[in-house]
This record gives sequence, structure tokens and C-alpha cells, in this order.
Amino acid sequence: MQPLKVIPLGGLGEIGKNMMLLEYGDEGMIIDVGIMFPENDMLGIDYIIPDFGYVVERLAEGLHIRGIVVTHGHEDHTGAIGHVLDSISAPVYATALTAGLLEIKMRQSGHSDHPLIIFRAGDTLDLGVFQVETFHVCHSIPDGVGLGITTPVGLIVHSSDFKFDHTPVDGWPPDFAKLAEFSKRGVLALLSDSTNADNPGWTPSESVIDAAFDEVFRSARGRVIVATFASLISRIQQVASAAERHGRKMAIAGFSMQEYIKVATRLGYLNLPPDVMINIEQANKMPPSKVVIMATGTQGEPSAVLGRLAWGRHRLLEVEHGDTVIMSAHPIPGNEELVHRTMNKLIQRGATVIYDPLLPVHVSGHASREELKLLINLVRPKFFIPVHGELRHLTEHGRLAESLGILPKNIAVVENGTVIELTPDSLTVGERVPGGYVFVDGAGVGDVGPIVMRDREILGRDGFVAVQVLIDRQTRELIEPPEFVSRGFVFLREATELLDAAERLIEEIVATSPDGDLTRTIQDALSRLFYNETKRRPMTFAFVKQI
Amino acid sequence: MQPLKVIPLGGLGEIGKNMMLLEYGDEGMIIDVGIMFPENDMLGIDYIIPDFGYVVERLAEGLHIRGIVVTHGHEDHTGAIGHVLDSISAPVYATALTAGLLEIKMRQSGHSDHPLIIFRAGDTLDLGVFQVETFHVCHSIPDGVGLGITTPVGLIVHSSDFKFDHTPVDGWPPDFAKLAEFSKRGVLALLSDSTNADNPGWTPSESVIDAAFDEVFRSARGRVIVATFASLISRIQQVASAAERHGRKMAIAGFSMQEYIKVATRLGYLNLPPDVMINIEQANKMPPSKVVIMATGTQGEPSAVLGRLAWGRHRLLEVEHGDTVIMSAHPIPGNEELVHRTMNKLIQRGATVIYDPLLPVHVSGHASREELKLLINLVRPKFFIPVHGELRHLTEHGRLAESLGILPKNIAVVENGTVIELTPDSLTVGERVPGGYVFVDGAGVGDVGPIVMRDREILGRDGFVAVQVLIDRQTRELIEPPEFVSRGFVFLREATELLDAAERLIEEIVATSPDGDLTRTIQDALSRLFYNETKRRPMTFAFVKQI
Repeated sequence: MQPLKVIPLGGLGEIGKNMMLLEYGDEGMIIDVGIMFPENDMLGIDYIIPDFGYVVERLAEGLHIRGIVVTHGHEDHTGAIGHVLDSISAPVYATALTAGLLEIKMRQSGHSDHPLIIFRAGDTLDLGVFQVETFHVCHSIPDGVGLGITTPVGLIVHSSDFKFDHTPVDGWPPDFAKLAEFSKRGVLALLSDSTNADNPGWTPSESVIDAAFDEVFRSARGRVIVATFASLISRIQQVASAAERHGRKMAIAGFSMQEYIKVATRLGYLNLPPDVMINIEQANKMPPSKVVIMATGTQGEPSAVLGRLAWGRHRLLEVEHGDTVIMSAHPIPGNEELVHRTMNKLIQRGATVIYDPLLPVHVSGHASREELKLLINLVRPKFFIPVHGELRHLTEHGRLAESLGILPKNIAVVENGTVIELTPDSLTVGERVPGGYVFVDGAGVGDVGPIVMRDREILGRDGFVAVQVLIDRQTRELIEPPEFVSRGFVFLREATELLDAAERLIEEIVATSPDGDLTRTIQDALSRLFYNETKRRPMTFAFVKQI
Repeated sequence: MQPLKVIPLGGLGEIGKNMMLLEYGDEGMIIDVGIMFPENDMLGIDYIIPDFGYVVERLAEGLHIRGIVVTHGHEDHTGAIGHVLDSISAPVYATALTAGLLEIKMRQSGHSDHPLIIFRAGDTLDLGVFQVETFHVCHSIPDGVGLGITTPVGLIVHSSDFKFDHTPVDGWPPDFAKLAEFSKRGVLALLSDSTNADNPGWTPSESVIDAAFDEVFRSARGRVIVATFASLISRIQQVASAAERHGRKMAIAGFSMQEYIKVATRLGYLNLPPDVMINIEQANKMPPSKVVIMATGTQGEPSAVLGRLAWGRHRLLEVEHGDTVIMSAHPIPGNEELVHRTMNKLIQRGATVIYDPLLPVHVSGHASREELKLLINLVRPKFFIPVHGELRHLTEHGRLAESLGILPKNIAVVENGTVIELTPDSLTVGERVPGGYVFVDGAGVGDVGPIVMRDREILGRDGFVAVQVLIDRQTRELIEPPEFVSRGFVFLREATELLDAAERLIEEIVATSPDGDLTRTIQDALSRLFYNETKRRPMTFAFVKQI
């Protein structure tokens, strides 16, 4: 029997998070099509997409992709849909909310006519050799699903991003029954979310936030500004309910959040009491103690609402003494400095800022260790493949599975682009295919490689100097003084001594050096001069012309 | 009566962390002289020193600095000693270990002859109008002291960086008696460490780490590599003790850690059993199960030992399958991405990586909320000034003090450079003086300002293009094709179409444009072209010459 190939594709550090390929013979299916955001030292990069070159290559060899199943509406699972559809033509499957969010992206990328099939959690999708039973999971966006995929080699369960929330805001608990049923049928392999595999205990339910909101809403004398992710629909619902309970009206600041609210309301995932909702202009006319404002910008993004409030650059709103800002999100690793700066700026403007751990105003959307154990023991898979996490999370998740009795040889901790081959009796870690990530910078996809990145790093650190040197071929004298341009190195207007020294150096080289590579000689001499004088290493370029 | 002025000076975000001035009439004293490390978007900056221009100005007006008291040996309290002594001449006071570390810096900065007076915790320093009673505090480096400063207006208590560790590794608990005595005498103002003011509970004692070490040392089949801060002397002691308990030998990798060990051992703060210590070469010849290696690099610094091990670039050591790496430190906010990358790389090479929260292998050196409350209630000050923390920490610390009955008007939450005036009866927040921070980049101190930083940001994001355009004055034709230099924008060799378009654009401008600012016309047109084609905005420069 030929094996089923499971291939995590792309994701920056996180494995199989953004995209995954299942391949059996010449049939395939894709799970998720997401993007990642660049890390701090990935200068100038807008976002990062999975490297799905392997899929494209296999398509040319006759692979038939039966469907692209998107498990939920977060950017890291939906954001690359346009790029993927540019190269891979297969119907897209999603639940209503996810589809609503995908539609916008498909329209923007010129794929509005592409088939997008809406299903409900619980539905079964017929994707060639793959029978995909979808089941409801709880996460920090509504309408997420996990997948039970019956394949020729056996049943594969994919958890998607999940937590076991017994009291979710939308009242729709996880589908434990379905998981138990899979278990009864016999699960060949479980692919499970590893994001919080190093987090002990059980992730608190979303409902704990209500009490924290009540405490803040009760004691706040002025306006309450709640910042969260635009896609965190349940949090928006919780804030609206708290507003209602405490006799406040609620306004929404931020275009992306308004868009999410529109889609989620239209599709019935959000139910904002109409008499609670007002707009910003109305909010500005009301007594502060009667107002709640919801905003984006919890990651310190300077252009989001909270960032603009912190730096006093919002068109309609201004943070005032007496305002209380709730940071209803955790900083994503790498964003801490910006987030803390934003918080400090808000405090400087007179706001009280409430964040976890001061009060539990945010909870994670991912399962912690006890939940992960529960999933493994509910499903009792033969093989275990931790996904959605960095290598350290997968490793820890693998160890957890081992502690529950899964044999080490039946656990595959792999990196993106690794082919895992499954048969009813075996799990084999096979070859590596390209499966990394691709930088998107402006209009360029993948054209910014390591050399350009290295140059950006050097330019960002020490800047550059360029100089034009025009030489009289006969007299070997400069036709005019060298013209310097420099940025990011020193403030030129204050560096006259340094420029004078550079000029004298060039004159001397021109007068005394034999012909040959005058450009390089000047560049090298200038580099040395700049380093000696400043201990910095700007990139140095000379345009030398003999006339 | 004239007031005592308390002025926090410098610190990047953290208030009064790096330097503080007490000023009474024409007498002053300085507490700490530290540096900070740049945040992720401070491109090219090596480190940051306090802006002590105010002190220099006051010196010129006759202020007499009676002494510089350094509370402990961490970089953020000692690192700027050279810069400070360049401008401010006053005797330096420190305990033996702190002095040992200061000495190295003073030698390196050409101040080895400067008076450095060693005292012991408990000693009283006579600094003009200031009587400074020093008292022992526990922190993540030995021999830290807090200060009880009798001034003409009253007794000021400065906590320095501290935690209340009842079972510290060096067996030297905090000096509660002294704090109680201060309280009995009556404390005018308390300045207290706010670093962990948002952390609930009590910071665990260093001794909890022993159990975690035992667990790892017992189960590790191969080598144990413990990474921590070079200055975390007590942790080095704990690792040596664990090595002894478990029959392992210990080697030190990393120059800075070896230097710290030398100073600490010479001065009696560290007692490494000689039969336990080996060098790296010896360690490489022993069975892995008999070896512990201590290393630096817990913040993911690529050039530190752990970074070199992770990327396979260490001269003597290589991480092998079976090695266990203990991350005995928390990532400093902003370093998470680098730290996580390092951990993932180590796992990729076959190591097991242990970190908090998997096991409690690190504890903070700063007091949490319950300890902060205890200090306030031990000392019962009239006025309270939270220091050492970002504005959000100070604010929270102020709120904490309020909850203990300190009147809001007696609490001063301020920013660096704010003059706080104290009399026996009043606390007044006064004028702002310069008290920010100064960038050190290479040999330049303070010469890199906002313009250079902004240019570095743009260069780092989109790079630059420079072009030389030589025009025949008579024919208005290009003498030769324009010569392009570009870095960080696109990979030039693959951008022939773009360069061709740029060349045609220049030809056209030269042929058709009226005289005038041809340079600007070309630059603007190229910028537009580059943006339209790539959606990037490289800095664009033209050297245009008519000949």
C-alpha cells in the first residue's frame, strides 16, 4: 500500500501552522493558507508566506489538489489565499465566518470568482480519497473547526488551533463527542496544536474575563478604552455585554475591527445590542463615565488606533486624564518593547492602563498541557505529530505524548518541508522538500534574499557614504571637490572635519596612486578612515570618473 | 529651609535606574552610573548612557559632588562610570565586589587612578551634608546595598535593586533590622525598586532552583550545559554545588563569565570546589555524563557562547545529541525572538532545552508586590518615590503604596529629569531638566540624533539607490550610460528590467527637461519609478554633472 504523505509547509519558525499538504498518490488536499509577520530583524519585510513551490512542482507532475480547507479566520491561516490561488487552483472550503473573511482577501487579490464552499462544523467534505469530517473547536475566533480525515491509510485527526473551553462566550463548547467517536473508530494519527505545549495547567476560559471587565467598568470614573485584536469577536461581544451591564454606550475605533464586526454580525456570530452601539462622534459628546471605546493596536503598532492615541495622533479621539485603557491581549513575542512603550505613553497622557497580570483581562486561545493531554487521551492515536509551534513547543508536546504512553518511534517532531509517510503500520520521516518561507516586500514576492537582507542590516546599523570623484585625466587632479552623500552614518552638517579629512585623502590617492582600480582604492581608504575616526563601518561607494 | 532635590537622571524607559542625583544647596551625591542596551528599533546603537548634562551644568555653577555611590555591580548601575568620570570628578564608593567590577571599567576608560573607596554593607559614608548608612540587600548579584541617607531635611531610604530572599545562596539575608531601625527613627521618603511592581505575590527564593537543578542533573544522560548571566555569581555557585552533588565536573565557557568568576573568587564571594573545576579541553575528553558546562548567552546574543553553540560556530565545543541545556535566565523584553531562535537551533542539534516554565530554573532578582508592600510597611515613609522601572511599573507601585495608606499627594511618580523637592513637610514635583538618554555608537557619544536614526530606519527597510549621470553640456546627451549603485533595495543583478527602465527615464529627462534642478528632477522621477514598480521606497540619490 502506498503511504499517505503529510507535509507541513511554511510558517516562520512555527511548523505546519500556515499551510499543510496531505498527498496520497496523485491526490492531495491543503489545510490552511496563512501568513506570518516578520521578526524584528527582518528589515523592511511586509509579511511572509509559506514556500509552496513543492505543491506547484507536484501539480506539474499530475498531482490533483481536491480542496483547500481553511480551519479558521485568523491571518496566519487565511492571509496567503491570494498567493496560493495564483498558483494552485482548487476549491476553497471554510465555515461561514472564515469564508466571509476569505472572501475579502480573494476579492482584493482578484480571485472573487474562485469557488468558495461554505460548510458547517459537523459537515463532511468529499475531497477525492479524503473524507473530511469537520468538528467544532473553541479558539480566539468563532467557528473554528478541527478535521477528522479518513484516508486510504486510516483516520487522521487535525486539531487546528484550539482550546477546551467549557464556557466559551458563544456558548458553543468543543465537540468532545466527535473526538470520542473518532477514538472508537481508531485514529491512525493525531496532529495537534503545540502553541502552549510549555504552559502548565489548563488555559482559563474566556468567561473569566467577564469578572475582570466588571471590576474595571465598576471602578472606572472616566471612559473605558478596551484594546484587543480586531478578529477577537468574542471579546467584542464581552465588552458590549459589560457595557450594557454597567450602563455605558460602546463605540468602535479602527477600520479593521469595524470590518470584522460587519462580517461577524451579518453572519450571526456577533450580537451587539443596537441601543448600546454609538459612533465616536457621539461618544465624544457623552459623559466619559457612560462611554466604552473598543480599539485595535494591542501590539503597539504605531498606525493602529491605540498607537495613535498613545502618540496623540488620532483624528477624533484623545486620551484624557481619567480614561482607563484595558489591554485585552498579550504581546506577541517580539512586540514587547513597542507594547510597553505604548502603555507608558498612554499613562503619560493620564490614562490608567490595565493589563494581565494586574487583572485577567486576556486569556490565550490555545490549549495548555492538561488540555493537550486530554485531547491525546480522548483520541488515542497510534501516531502523534505535534504541529503549530516552534521546534521547542513540538519537542515538549512530543515528550508529553510520550508520557501518556505513545511510543517514541510513533512520534514525529519535524520541521517545515519534512515529508512524513504514514501507512496503517508505520510512520516514516522521509526526505526534505522546500518548505520554508518566502518574504513579501512591497510588490516583490521572494525577490528579497539573504544578500539584500544582510545589506539592509548593515545600512540600518551604520548607513552609507557615496562620493563622486571627477578627475582630470591629463593633470591627475580633481576637477572639482568630491561630492559626498551620506545617510544613517553621521549627521553630515556636523561632520565637517571628517569630510575635510576624506577630501584630503581622496586628493592624495588621486595624485599618488598608479592607475588601476582607483574606485576600490578610494572606497577602501575611506572605509578605513571612517572606521578609525568613528568606529563605525558605513557602506562606502565611490563614483570615480577620469575625464 | 531649602529643599533637598532628588533627580532621576537617565535610563531608557526605566526611571532613575541608571543614575540619580541628590542635591542640597551646593552639595550633591550621585547614586549609580549605569548603561542600558538599545531596543530593537535603535539601529546601530551600541549602548545608551544617562544624560547627565544637568550635573555638569550645576558643577559649573559651583555644585560640589561629594561622592558617587554604586549600589551593586550590574551593568545598568556601573557601565557608564567611564563617561561619568570624564565629566564629573568625585570619589566613587562601592562594596568590594562592585568595586572589583568597577575597577576593570575604570582601567579601560583611563580612570584607574581615580579614588575608589571600598566599604562594607553596614558602613556609614560621610558625604558632606549626606550621611549614608549602607545596608545589605539581596539581588541577583552579591554584595548589593541599599542606602539610608540622612540629609538636612530628613532620612531618605533608597532600596536599590532588591528582593526579600530568606534563603539566598550566599546565606546573607536582607538587613530587616536596619530597615526597622530606620522606621523607628522616622523616614521622610522611600525610593523603592519598581521592576516587578506588576508581579503578584512574592518572588521565589534562589534556593528553589537547587531542586530544579537536581532534577535535571539526575535525569540528564549526557552533558549538562547551564547558561546564565556572567554576573549571576550565586547561580554559578549553585551549579558548582549541583555538579558536586551529582558527581560531575564543571567547566566555564565564556570570557566574561571567567572574568566575573575571577573577581568574585578573589574577593571571597564565590567558592568553587577546586576538584570540581576543569577546563573545556578536559571536559571534552570526559564521559558526557560527568560534565557540566557553564555558558553565557541567555539573551540569544549570536556572539556569546550559547549563540555560537546554537549556530555551530564555537571553537572548542559542539552541541551533541544527548546534551541538556538549561536556560537559567529569562529573556529580557525585546530579546524573545533571538532567545527562542537560539533554543530552537539547540534542539535542532539534538539538545534537550530546559527553561522556565518547564522547570523553575530561574527566578527574578527583583521584589514582587508582597515584598514591595513589606518594604513600605517596614519603613513607613512619609513620602514615597517609586524608581527603577518603566512608567507603568512606577504607576502601579504608586497605587500599591496608596493601598497601604500613603497619601496620593505624598507619592511622586515622575520621569527622568524631573526635580522632586523634599522638605520635612512637603514633596513638590518641580521643573524638568534634561535627563533622558544619550546614544553611544562606536566612538560617538550623542552624535547620533533623530535624523540619523530615521535615515537608518528607512535604509534598513528599503535600502538606497545612487546613480551617476554625466551629461554632455553641448549635445544634452549622456556621455555614458548612468552608473547605478544600490544596496538593500533589490538584488541588482536580477533587476535588469528595472535598471533599463531607470536608464531610459534618465535619458528622457536629460533630453527634454529644461535646465534647473536636474538632480532633483532625476531623483524624484526615479523614486516614483521604483515605487510604482516595486512598492518600495529606497532612498534615491543622483550625482548629476554636466561636462
